[in-house]
Amino acid sequence: MKRSERLISLTNFFINHPRKLTQLTHFTEAYNASKSSVSEDVNIIHKQFKQEGIGYIVNTAGVSGGVQYIPYFDKAKSKDVITDLCNQLEDPSRVLPGGYVYMSDLLGNPSVVQEIAKAFVTAFHDEKIDAVVTVETKGISLAYAVAQYLQVPVVVIRRNMRVTEGSSVSINYVSGRSHRIQTMILPKRHLEEGMNVCIIDDFIKAGGTVSGMISLLEEFKAKVVGVGIFAEGEDDQEEARMIDNYTSLVKVANMNVKNKQINVTLGNFFNK
Amino acid sequence: MKRSERLISLTNFFINHPRKLTQLTHFTEAYNASKSSVSEDVNIIHKQFKQEGIGYIVNTAGVSGGVQYIPYFDKAKSKDVITDLCNQLEDPSRVLPGGYVYMSDLLGNPSVVQEIAKAFVTAFHDEKIDAVVTVETKGISLAYAVAQYLQVPVVVIRRNMRVTEGSSVSINYVSGRSHRIQTMILPKRHLEEGMNVCIIDDFIKAGGTVSGMISLLEEFKAKVVGVGIFAEGEDDQEEARMIDNYTSLVKVANMNVKNKQINVTLGNFFNK
Repeated sequence: MKRSERLISLTNFFINHPRKLTQLTHFTEAYNASKSSVSEDVNIIHKQFKQEGIGYIVNTAGVSGGVQYIPYFDKAKSKDVITDLCNQLEDPSRVLPGGYVYMSDLLGNPSVVQEIAKAFVTAFHDEKIDAVVTVETKGISLAYAVAQYLQVPVVVIRRNMRVTEGSSVSINYVSGRSHRIQTMILPKRHLEEGMNVCIIDDFIKAGGTVSGMISLLEEFKAKVVGVGIFAEGEDDQEEARMIDNYTSLVKVANMNVKNKQINVTLGNFFNK
Repeated sequence: MKRSERLISLTNFFINHPRKLTQLTHFTEAYNASKSSVSEDVNIIHKQFKQEGIGYIVNTAGVSGGVQYIPYFDKAKSKDVITDLCNQLEDPSRVLPGGYVYMSDLLGNPSVVQEIAKAFVTAFHDEKIDAVVTVETKGISLAYAVAQYLQVPVVVIRRNMRVTEGSSVSINYVSGRSHRIQTMILPKRHLEEGMNVCIIDDFIKAGGTVSGMISLLEEFKAKVVGVGIFAEGEDDQEEARMIDNYTSLVKVANMNVKNKQINVTLGNFFNK
């Protein structure tokens, strides 16, 4: 196999198997190439991935060693993409009653979701994450896209019990703004105990839902190592937001439902 | 920029931008390379992608022409992967009351979801698809993964009305087996009229949900060009399944809830 063909094959492999540790012999056998040739290929790819701002290849020596593509995306490019999303979100027709913003078109667009996911992957790059947790429905695609880059499972908390999936843990929580009591459910077999998880969701206002998720996850002895929220809304109530340690990509402010006005700026990820 | 670097950069671009038509000048400028060099690069990638069984590059001549990566996956490889899933699904602990199968772990695993999505992309390769439609909750990750390859929006039908997203169309339908009346809702702005859509869902039994989705989509003058269901269950009722034109990847049979027995074989995709 020629070097040019190996480079294409390896690039495809790495991009489709992020974070997967693979022994070099896997490639030397598949390509019928020497270890030094494959090492050189990997090195060329490592440099080019860094150049493209999409991450890097880690090369671990030893018996259990191998190569591994770690996605890590250029923050300046993210900033451009998210700034463009801010502009799109300022469209007055997106203002919904109750202080919500219409975003379903963006969260249903795979290339937008991909770009949002990249920012979270970069934000949580230093954390060891075993699972991505979200609550149905709107954040699922986004959580899945993040989980794809991290190559860990997505766990979806349900709002109500459906067909039995064995014993479940459920909690009641108070929705931050409306003060309504709501329920969240997670079947026990969906998440092992003691995992490191990151929470991904589309929108936060008072933070009641996320704080409910954190309570539910405590029942699974999970450690929440990151909370990534695409858009944070305004919380104009006296009381403080129910959670304060989260990463947001955009920030919605000065929403006026009557006049259909809305300001959308970059979230706290870009201050860090 | 060297050929080796261009090949890595182009491979990354194509894999992350499936079906996107891009003019060659985009690359000649980005790489400061001649048109003939880039054409040769694209040709090498085209051959290698075919070799890898992941699709091919289409090269369109003319002013509005360009190059485009069309994902199309090797069916023999899909068969191996799905056969392995059949074996996993035959685990007795997956048998759930009511004739359901526990699959949330598989549908939450990004690499499994990716492989399932690839089979549907291949199945619907000849159709012009404008959107992927699913119904909350379990099929969303899968629908998103398919939409990523097709680069079209995912549209999620809701089970109940939440915060208003403007005017919605809702229908009542009869769940095939339990004969219960259920509701489905789709806000009008989620789907333009007259689109070609494919439906993706995780499981079908009597087919009531899918036939409900088709009725709802008729209200949007959508044309359903494909129905992709990961697993088809047994419909042991006298009456015929409510829909008969669908593509399934696995087929569940002889389920015995009491004895926790279940047979899982390849679905109709592999007969076609």
